[in-house]
Amino acid sequence: MKAQAGPAEIARVCERIEALGFKPHIIPGEQRTAIGITGNSGPIDSAEFDHLPGVAEAIRVSKPYKLVSRETKPENTVVMVNGVAVGGEEIVLCGGPCSVESREQILESAHAVKHAGGELLRGGAYKPRTSPYTFQGLAEEGLRYLAEARAETGLGIVTEAIDTETFDMVESYADCVQIGARNMQNFSLLRRAGRSRKPVLLKRGIASTLEEFLMAAEYILSEGNYNVILCERGVRTFADHTRNTLDLSVVPAVQALSHLPIIVDPSHGTGKRDKVIPMALASIAAGASGVMVEVHPAPERALSDGFQSLDPAEFREMAAECRAISELLAARRKIPAGVR
Amino acid sequence: MKAQAGPAEIARVCERIEALGFKPHIIPGEQRTAIGITGNSGPIDSAEFDHLPGVAEAIRVSKPYKLVSRETKPENTVVMVNGVAVGGEEIVLCGGPCSVESREQILESAHAVKHAGGELLRGGAYKPRTSPYTFQGLAEEGLRYLAEARAETGLGIVTEAIDTETFDMVESYADCVQIGARNMQNFSLLRRAGRSRKPVLLKRGIASTLEEFLMAAEYILSEGNYNVILCERGVRTFADHTRNTLDLSVVPAVQALSHLPIIVDPSHGTGKRDKVIPMALASIAAGASGVMVEVHPAPERALSDGFQSLDPAEFREMAAECRAISELLAARRKIPAGVR
Amino acid sequence: MKAQAGPAEIARVCERIEALGFKPHIIPGEQRTAIGITGNSGPIDSAEFDHLPGVAEAIRVSKPYKLVSRETKPENTVVMVNGVAVGGEEIVLCGGPCSVESREQILESAHAVKHAGGELLRGGAYKPRTSPYTFQGLAEEGLRYLAEARAETGLGIVTEAIDTETFDMVESYADCVQIGARNMQNFSLLRRAGRSRKPVLLKRGIASTLEEFLMAAEYILSEGNYNVILCERGVRTFADHTRNTLDLSVVPAVQALSHLPIIVDPSHGTGKRDKVIPMALASIAAGASGVMVEVHPAPERALSDGFQSLDPAEFREMAAECRAISELLAARRKIPAGVR
Amino acid sequence: MKAQAGPAEIARVCERIEALGFKPHIIPGEQRTAIGITGNSGPIDSAEFDHLPGVAEAIRVSKPYKLVSRETKPENTVVMVNGVAVGGEEIVLCGGPCSVESREQILESAHAVKHAGGELLRGGAYKPRTSPYTFQGLAEEGLRYLAEARAETGLGIVTEAIDTETFDMVESYADCVQIGARNMQNFSLLRRAGRSRKPVLLKRGIASTLEEFLMAAEYILSEGNYNVILCERGVRTFADHTRNTLDLSVVPAVQALSHLPIIVDPSHGTGKRDKVIPMALASIAAGASGVMVEVHPAPERALSDGFQSLDPAEFREMAAECRAISELLAARRKIPAGVR
Repeated sequence: MKAQAGPAEIARVCERIEALGFKPHIIPGEQRTAIGITGNSGPIDSAEFDHLPGVAEAIRVSKPYKLVSRETKPENTVVMVNGVAVGGEEIVLCGGPCSVESREQILESAHAVKHAGGELLRGGAYKPRTSPYTFQGLAEEGLRYLAEARAETGLGIVTEAIDTETFDMVESYADCVQIGARNMQNFSLLRRAGRSRKPVLLKRGIASTLEEFLMAAEYILSEGNYNVILCERGVRTFADHTRNTLDLSVVPAVQALSHLPIIVDPSHGTGKRDKVIPMALASIAAGASGVMVEVHPAPERALSDGFQSLDPAEFREMAAECRAISELLAARRKIPAGVR
Repeated sequence: MKAQAGPAEIARVCERIEALGFKPHIIPGEQRTAIGITGNSGPIDSAEFDHLPGVAEAIRVSKPYKLVSRETKPENTVVMVNGVAVGGEEIVLCGGPCSVESREQILESAHAVKHAGGELLRGGAYKPRTSPYTFQGLAEEGLRYLAEARAETGLGIVTEAIDTETFDMVESYADCVQIGARNMQNFSLLRRAGRSRKPVLLKRGIASTLEEFLMAAEYILSEGNYNVILCERGVRTFADHTRNTLDLSVVPAVQALSHLPIIVDPSHGTGKRDKVIPMALASIAAGASGVMVEVHPAPERALSDGFQSLDPAEFREMAAECRAISELLAARRKIPAGVR
Repeated sequence: MKAQAGPAEIARVCERIEALGFKPHIIPGEQRTAIGITGNSGPIDSAEFDHLPGVAEAIRVSKPYKLVSRETKPENTVVMVNGVAVGGEEIVLCGGPCSVESREQILESAHAVKHAGGELLRGGAYKPRTSPYTFQGLAEEGLRYLAEARAETGLGIVTEAIDTETFDMVESYADCVQIGARNMQNFSLLRRAGRSRKPVLLKRGIASTLEEFLMAAEYILSEGNYNVILCERGVRTFADHTRNTLDLSVVPAVQALSHLPIIVDPSHGTGKRDKVIPMALASIAAGASGVMVEVHPAPERALSDGFQSLDPAEFREMAAECRAISELLAARRKIPAGVR
Repeated sequence: MKAQAGPAEIARVCERIEALGFKPHIIPGEQRTAIGITGNSGPIDSAEFDHLPGVAEAIRVSKPYKLVSRETKPENTVVMVNGVAVGGEEIVLCGGPCSVESREQILESAHAVKHAGGELLRGGAYKPRTSPYTFQGLAEEGLRYLAEARAETGLGIVTEAIDTETFDMVESYADCVQIGARNMQNFSLLRRAGRSRKPVLLKRGIASTLEEFLMAAEYILSEGNYNVILCERGVRTFADHTRNTLDLSVVPAVQALSHLPIIVDPSHGTGKRDKVIPMALASIAAGASGVMVEVHPAPERALSDGFQSLDPAEFREMAAECRAISELLAARRKIPAGVR
């Protein structure tokens, strides 16, 4: 739609789409609103829309993903999580423990994240575990502690939903619902997330191609939830010096094809504490909209993944360096190229 | 338990396990019954059980998977699917289309499978799809057609459950419920399958290690369903001459570590029709308990995966060659080594 | 060329090719001779050759590999190694130690291979080693022992050349010169092998695509040596239950695209003794022209790779089963399909 | 050795090593000299050296790589290439075309690199090619053009040697001899490079583990050439949005285990022009000692790899941003942590 198109014009386009038997998707942007169409089995004649008031252009999307495509919406999507803009000019720092272990642990972590300049708190209350016999998370008790941490610090809460059964519960506490790597192609869960009003953080599957990653996001958008943040967290390869191989090239690759923001999780991506800070800085330099790292008040005592968690002082240093790189690049790129 | 141990002795061991606060798992075998213990957080003194009547041996399992381990149950598990033994002396051939498309298509496929000597019919009524916009299966209608095919041919039905919401429906029609590769670590779905009375066919995830594969099976067994058939269906690598890389070495690897039967799906494993028969024969030669292949009455008209489906004549030829190899090896191995 | 084309007609076609400034390659076959053309930078008008006597057809090869392509030569190439046909009706069994360690060891291995029905003896005198500090092979001394083993047993010798410097030496002893996986893209070595009169066994690189594998063979053929045997020996993936992942689907894939024979090395392909026999049988069932396995008179005392070597009795059993499967399939496939 | 140890004391330690039948390796550092020992088949009693004058400590190296290990030499190695320090405080920028195509092209490229602030010029005169039928480089003619470019611009020359036959020729022109990814385990070539007086740039193999990469460098050092620069250039995985997957986590991983400098090649690492700058910045942020990128005066006309080459203006912008990030991080890290 044109920048000046108003609600009445948007509504009229949607009516036209519905009259043709298809489903309209209003995807708002800072400058302009895009209206995606799904439900068609083949191309639609653009003449159906070109003449409607407020329509700037009718674009045929050439990719298998429609609503996540930059063809549909050329400008970046900014997702608001508890008042924090993800995908905007400033990077976002999300920290916290792998799993919520106790009230003290999560409150202490939250204050450390807040103190270091982080905006979002991560922590799992429901944990997908390779073994049925290991700690599966504190469930609702964990969610209550996260809410308490939010009340104390003002940090937004990012926490994982592992199945449709417990999605309602997670959604009622979270500011952003995480879909984990193992569930990236759990299509029922993606559909449920698509019917949520909360933003969704979608992690890339461990052997997912870029197209599969974007198609998974498409499942969420196709149900009407356009607030999706993508997250690279490493893929599985032969390399054995890190737990996974962090594929940072997917950051510019996503940005070329999609309007959705992408952040990076270097903690799961490397699985080794001494690789987390270098990879966090690299993520920001590569253009990621933020990083998500594991921070634990006492990594050596963590119930899970302590070997890849930063302590609060490390997180603070990382946060400052990430911001400095981001600001440096933003400042340079605001100057016209001829003057630089 | 000793071979001659009776129900009373088994019950008494279970009572003892429960009295200690743990969960007993009675895993029947042809010769002897094994009783697995879960719920313990550390080693249990074997003296607790050694003296009980009927106990042959108390074994401490050294692997992260307990109930699927061959340490727990040394003899092979044979899973019965609609009267067909999977994991026994004879191989099992399962054929059918990728998805149920129509009554005619599935009936025609079923008769072709039956005619070629197949025992099980595969076909998806619920399909996990990379894109939200492609055919998602006929749902219950498809299940009814499968049931009709079973009534006409006597073939057992193997069909996929893609989420906990539709599991009940699938379970009510299927003889064996398939958990697909994308759901291999959908732990809620695995738990639901573990509470089913139907056998479960568990496909290996696309980037799953052997240990993760066995741990996924462990989720099912830990809930009380000991009738699990494993299935190799290819993993994702750099190689581009096949859709996935069929990892047949996992067949002897599973057999060394677990008592569960393993079959192979060379259709998804290669994604190319001309590779299916060679890989099916290779699977049997490697020791697999059977193969599962896509058969379509008219592959060129299939709605999905036609390029990897055999036509009925090809399936028939494959079935005969698979059986011939299996019988050859079985016959040779019955003769004492010194005489061969 | 037509089946009845004689030397004069072949010579005349070659003259014509040279007159055009290109290089002719006479690739003999059992039925017909193919003449490949290289050196052209674009398509050549087939009218240049169509009218010449003895020419059956002028085919434009659509692949980047020309001389190895089945388009150039539709019938299978049979490579003769010390009188043994590789790629013919019968499978070939090649066994022997990873490296030649001593005269006794190689003679004992050779007799074991012979006794078990093997036709070719493998064993490295020059070893490519990850570490500069480990045993690098006995060099010419090892080659002399191999020659002695050949004299005693009649087995053909397959042994590796690791660089151009020592190629002459290896070539002077070997019946078939092996190019190892690490050298699959050592183009200078491939060119040297292409100028050899000895057959070459080319192993697939650890992360080689099928096209790269065939292009490596093309380097050898382009220099005039058309006696190349391909060998699958496993590729590197995330899977950790075997040392490499044996990609048996490359066997039918090679056979579809190239006239060259392909065999399989399940010893390096799995790196685990208990996987070698199942994978050897699977290779033959998949259609490979033979297998190459490590046999050591006393695996537990081997200087290298003992954990993946068979002992003589195991090799003997494997050989018998491989032949039985091969004969079974050959017999079945000779019967017209309608009668089977 | 102690910081104040002089040539006489170093010589005496070497004599002692030789007297024991081993080989001493004098690896100079800015502060202290390390003396590595190879040729021993087992541990040596440290008492052999502890008492010698000038000896600070006798350390047993626990890794399979000895001379490249940080245990042997704790401080960073700085490799001088034509007067440019690689591995020192400042990053190094190396640019140039994939292959030398003509005098004009390489001179134009060299001036562009120089103008943009680059210090080293890359360009291949001998090219390892997948196909025997594609352009294999200008050979000595190309080397002469490179030398001319050096004479005009003062840039150091980095160019590849692809075999032992042409190594002498390359060495006579180059300031730094590159060993390409395909030759990372060409041990004869590594040994030849180890006998060179010129620094060596060693690229990581396409499926090389970190240990194999360091062992390849060990081959070079074990022959007496301690001036080795490592280079990450992407590994092969299932991911298809880039040609290879650039594994930046290997940068901190190398730095933890080895004293050798590591740089990154994001051009081959991604194979896509729009990913090169983000990944170059990410490399520097991750701590790499420099980047090596393809620059072509007219990428759209390049004979090879034009799609991944930057134009001079892009390279200039990249160079400025890389330096800015490097300086930012260096400046921050010089301030004591308490003050930051």
